[in-house]
Amino acid sequence: MRYELFYWPSIQGRGEFVRLALEQAGADYVDVARRRGHGLGMAEMTRLMEGPGLDRPPFAPPFLRAGRLMIAQTANILHYLGARLGLAPKAEPGRLWAHQLQLTVEDLIVDIHDTHHPIAASLYYEDQRPEALRRARFFTEERAPELLGYFEHVLERNRGGRGHAVGRSLSYVDLSLFQIVAGLRYGFPAMMERLEPRIPRLVELHGRVAQRPGIAAYLASARRLPFNQNGIFRHYPELDD
Amino acid sequence: MRYELFYWPSIQGRGEFVRLALEQAGADYVDVARRRGHGLGMAEMTRLMEGPGLDRPPFAPPFLRAGRLMIAQTANILHYLGARLGLAPKAEPGRLWAHQLQLTVEDLIVDIHDTHHPIAASLYYEDQRPEALRRARFFTEERAPELLGYFEHVLERNRGGRGHAVGRSLSYVDLSLFQIVAGLRYGFPAMMERLEPRIPRLVELHGRVAQRPGIAAYLASARRLPFNQNGIFRHYPELDD
Repeated sequence: MRYELFYWPSIQGRGEFVRLALEQAGADYVDVARRRGHGLGMAEMTRLMEGPGLDRPPFAPPFLRAGRLMIAQTANILHYLGARLGLAPKAEPGRLWAHQLQLTVEDLIVDIHDTHHPIAASLYYEDQRPEALRRARFFTEERAPELLGYFEHVLERNRGGRGHAVGRSLSYVDLSLFQIVAGLRYGFPAMMERLEPRIPRLVELHGRVAQRPGIAAYLASARRLPFNQNGIFRHYPELDD
Repeated sequence: MRYELFYWPSIQGRGEFVRLALEQAGADYVDVARRRGHGLGMAEMTRLMEGPGLDRPPFAPPFLRAGRLMIAQTANILHYLGARLGLAPKAEPGRLWAHQLQLTVEDLIVDIHDTHHPIAASLYYEDQRPEALRRARFFTEERAPELLGYFEHVLERNRGGRGHAVGRSLSYVDLSLFQIVAGLRYGFPAMMERLEPRIPRLVELHGRVAQRPGIAAYLASARRLPFNQNGIFRHYPELDD
């Protein structure tokens, strides 16, 4: 099966959670908007989303074409891929638990995004800066400790899990938690310096995932876009601790 | 199977999307925090969430106990229940599509909630009112038309679907869209008066769901909490059109 991933070509964004799973599994996939040059790929993505061709149109990228299926919503894509790529438990209780954690990662992503866009995604950061300063303080002082603490607790509870979030082997949840730690270190370095001593298992998970051969090769490749000021994780020093 | 739903006892909130599915299906369920009196039920919910008893702790309500399973995240609960209550397609493509739509409903719910809480869930509305006024304008002018328009488009594309969002019969997505229309009419009556002519299929779906015997009986019962100023849908006239 050759998968086709449709996502914005110049940011990690939500698509990165899918890319990490495909890369770790060594899956055969095409990052459509990047392969065909930004202009062409973007045009194809928009045409697909808004055109008359799909009976089940996605609301927004990322979406994944897998044979005759077109699947949108990041956590839904990972739910579908997890079983096929060996990155989730096979039995239903474990699959539901992995998905539940991924949806909580999604909640955290919304909070991170909204630190710099608390009013409107369609406005520039500079046009919602006073609100961003307020929301970011709530994030660094309340939400980030609370949500990172929750995932730390999940790792602690998974006795015998050898440091994995779900069961005893690597899942897409571990990959997503790696990305969260990496992104927060980019966007909120001072906050992370303060919080990391309280979340040793998450920090350790991040390091271990980064050293998996598939992920290490990906991170060293040109396929891994650098963090930048257009994605979910942005570094505005005034929003940090 | 007797299901146990754990959710805040005095609001519809996210729990309502689960209640509607259980009620429509005539499922055997207990709304734990409400049955045992607010104090006792709330204590049990908090004890479960924060106590040492669960290896797979939920981050927040709602969560559902189904035999030995404890499932959290609204869309995940509906994904689990849908197959069992006859409120979702049985085959994987249809299940994924229903879940994808439900996750987009979740995106809309976040936008609705954040109109009155754009800065912090832990602050009163009155303490984030200027920001709320700005975010609500973005909601009524951009996000609500965009997302409601998307669901209208989905209904239109589902040719032969007899007015349902997914396939040819009632699903939990229809129930959730009913709740969205009902809640927005409560919270944003002026906006809905303006938008409803553009979303005739959604309006019609709302009316049809309200008349289903299971739902009509539920809505007429004391089990249906009224909308109020503590839930997701709130009526602050200054945030409306």
